[in-house]
Amino acid sequence: MWIMAIPDSSLIKLRKFVCPEIVFGEEALMLAGQYAKNFGGDRVLAVSGRNVIRAGWSGKVIDSLEDEGLSYSLYSDFTSNPKAEEVMRGAEVYNREGCDVIVAVGGGSAIDCAKGIGIVSANKKHILEFKGVDQIPRPGPPLICVPTTCSGADVSQFAIITDTRRKMKMAIVSKTLVPDTSLIDPATNLTMSSDETEDTDTDALIQAIEAYTSKASSPITDQFALNAIDLVFYNLPKIVKEPAVLDYREKMKLGSLESGLAFTNASLGLIHAMSHSVGGFTDAPHGLCNAILFPYGVKFNYDTIPKRYDKIGEAMGLDLKGLSQEKRKTAIIDLIWKFLDDMGQRRTLEDVGVDKRDIPRLARNAMDDVCMMTNPRSATLEDVIAIYEEAL
Amino acid sequence: MWIMAIPDSSLIKLRKFVCPEIVFGEEALMLAGQYAKNFGGDRVLAVSGRNVIRAGWSGKVIDSLEDEGLSYSLYSDFTSNPKAEEVMRGAEVYNREGCDVIVAVGGGSAIDCAKGIGIVSANKKHILEFKGVDQIPRPGPPLICVPTTCSGADVSQFAIITDTRRKMKMAIVSKTLVPDTSLIDPATNLTMSSDETEDTDTDALIQAIEAYTSKASSPITDQFALNAIDLVFYNLPKIVKEPAVLDYREKMKLGSLESGLAFTNASLGLIHAMSHSVGGFTDAPHGLCNAILFPYGVKFNYDTIPKRYDKIGEAMGLDLKGLSQEKRKTAIIDLIWKFLDDMGQRRTLEDVGVDKRDIPRLARNAMDDVCMMTNPRSATLEDVIAIYEEAL
Repeated sequence: MWIMAIPDSSLIKLRKFVCPEIVFGEEALMLAGQYAKNFGGDRVLAVSGRNVIRAGWSGKVIDSLEDEGLSYSLYSDFTSNPKAEEVMRGAEVYNREGCDVIVAVGGGSAIDCAKGIGIVSANKKHILEFKGVDQIPRPGPPLICVPTTCSGADVSQFAIITDTRRKMKMAIVSKTLVPDTSLIDPATNLTMSSDETEDTDTDALIQAIEAYTSKASSPITDQFALNAIDLVFYNLPKIVKEPAVLDYREKMKLGSLESGLAFTNASLGLIHAMSHSVGGFTDAPHGLCNAILFPYGVKFNYDTIPKRYDKIGEAMGLDLKGLSQEKRKTAIIDLIWKFLDDMGQRRTLEDVGVDKRDIPRLARNAMDDVCMMTNPRSATLEDVIAIYEEAL
Repeated sequence: MWIMAIPDSSLIKLRKFVCPEIVFGEEALMLAGQYAKNFGGDRVLAVSGRNVIRAGWSGKVIDSLEDEGLSYSLYSDFTSNPKAEEVMRGAEVYNREGCDVIVAVGGGSAIDCAKGIGIVSANKKHILEFKGVDQIPRPGPPLICVPTTCSGADVSQFAIITDTRRKMKMAIVSKTLVPDTSLIDPATNLTMSSDETEDTDTDALIQAIEAYTSKASSPITDQFALNAIDLVFYNLPKIVKEPAVLDYREKMKLGSLESGLAFTNASLGLIHAMSHSVGGFTDAPHGLCNAILFPYGVKFNYDTIPKRYDKIGEAMGLDLKGLSQEKRKTAIIDLIWKFLDDMGQRRTLEDVGVDKRDIPRLARNAMDDVCMMTNPRSATLEDVIAIYEEAL
């Protein structure tokens, strides 16, 4: 795993890159049946939330399964920020129905739930036992993803599952979680609600920024990250104005793919670590938690690697030439605030139900998150508490 | 396969992207044993040419196999432009020695030979029976590559094998030919001869250009291709001057990786189709055959997609603003000639043993090559004959 390869010594500069097979473009989702059959599938577990079923995407995928003569069971008994018990129930369905392939149709929640179902059914263990890096003895069954948002989960080696008893999100990280195939159809994004669009699309931007500034970044992930920043930053405001224009959605979907390829291989940073902790506690949408912490995270990290952040600023269209470091920093953070304002995402932790008394607990959980390991600046518990307080 | 997805109708815009697991950096090759073991290997067939053995790279890889308690057999009985009978002999060794994993250490010839050995041993058929696109019923055993040149074969779904009886190269194209893992160690390039450096590194540039102008290009492959053009174009002249500087080699190796990821997913064009035909007939090095045909191929294609070629020119540092199409074309082709001169690669087909009488036969074979399908401009037999005559 890449985590092993983070250089404390500058001698070791190894970087890994993994990636599922990707099909990108119009009607890509109609290949689900063909892929499931090629993987030797006979009975498919389709994992898909109710909104996506209602929007018709799951039905299209099921048609493609039936066209190949495959039978299927549909599992939709999960919520956003999928919970451990929802994963366990899904694994029961998988086993009871004798499934041999999983097709996830949906956003990050559906895909992470499907990843969890896969490893639970292959290993006959409780989902909470896989927490951390490389803790999966056997890979799950073949997993085909049809992403209908911009989560990046369809190409990533992460699954984030909520431990409801402890009100915490748990990150599971392993190469075996990279799906086998991602069928990326830009039209699927047209049926997101405006909140979902803003949350998950902004998250694609934050993922790319955290990947670019990660301690485990590499020239390959850098390229994907900068391209993603450019694509998301310019297309998301257009999508907010004209949500029905497929061309913007297509560019956004490409940006999201590139962001996913960047962060799955470079990992993330403090914003995601702190956001996971808030999301586990409040069940607020992941993208929104990230957006709330976004400017504070950049402010905390900027002076550690100013040149990297300046590149990000330039990818967002800023002209930083001739400015002092302090002014460059301010320009970038101001632009982030403006972006959040334009997206209607300038919110506080209070807005999602965090109380000042919760902060020490949130901070302890954030310190324990795997994304904290690759943040460019080492953060103490006190640092994290201070950032949460700023964002309150 | 992507070939299926080339749009005759503009309705279908599907693009596929596949990629092996990649480890890039210092001492990456020392992970060969660990990967071979993770793939369930017990006895490894190491495929490696004599020069690479002499340079010490195969020995290092063998050390890493032994460190993991794996036994191995070494197969080096093949030549550059590997021949069908060499592949068949390798498959005999693989079977006789009871191997279960293949590790290729070398340039494109070693890797293509290893790919051939894998599919022959898995399918019990003659290598010549796999010719064309998607003709491999069963995937081969796990294949780990340690590329010691800039061929891109370590990430590609191509294997090019010479049919000696017919004096032709045969392209085998299938997703199953994508290696499982590529361990890319920039230091391995330090032991190439200067001819090898110029041939294979120039080929990385030509691959990227043909991928960028391919009918099957996509936004993902475009990005890799343009980055590769930039990296190769600026670093190769530095390498020629100072071949022992690792930093240039590292950038070149990254450029080669990006070129490989571009061409394996976008395919190539007329230059490679015509070069395969020449290489099969004369056994001249693949990179050199490409270099000879390079400016003529660009000249033939330019007017079909001038904007794409202009982007390439800009990636090579040209300022084309305000120039007429004819002048832009000339500027790009002149720069290519200058580059070939600087590399000592301005040669003719006669130099590699082609006679005017051979041209009709070479042209017929080139027309039959899978790379011709994705050339941006349709070429007739007469067009191909005319280009060969120019390059004579």
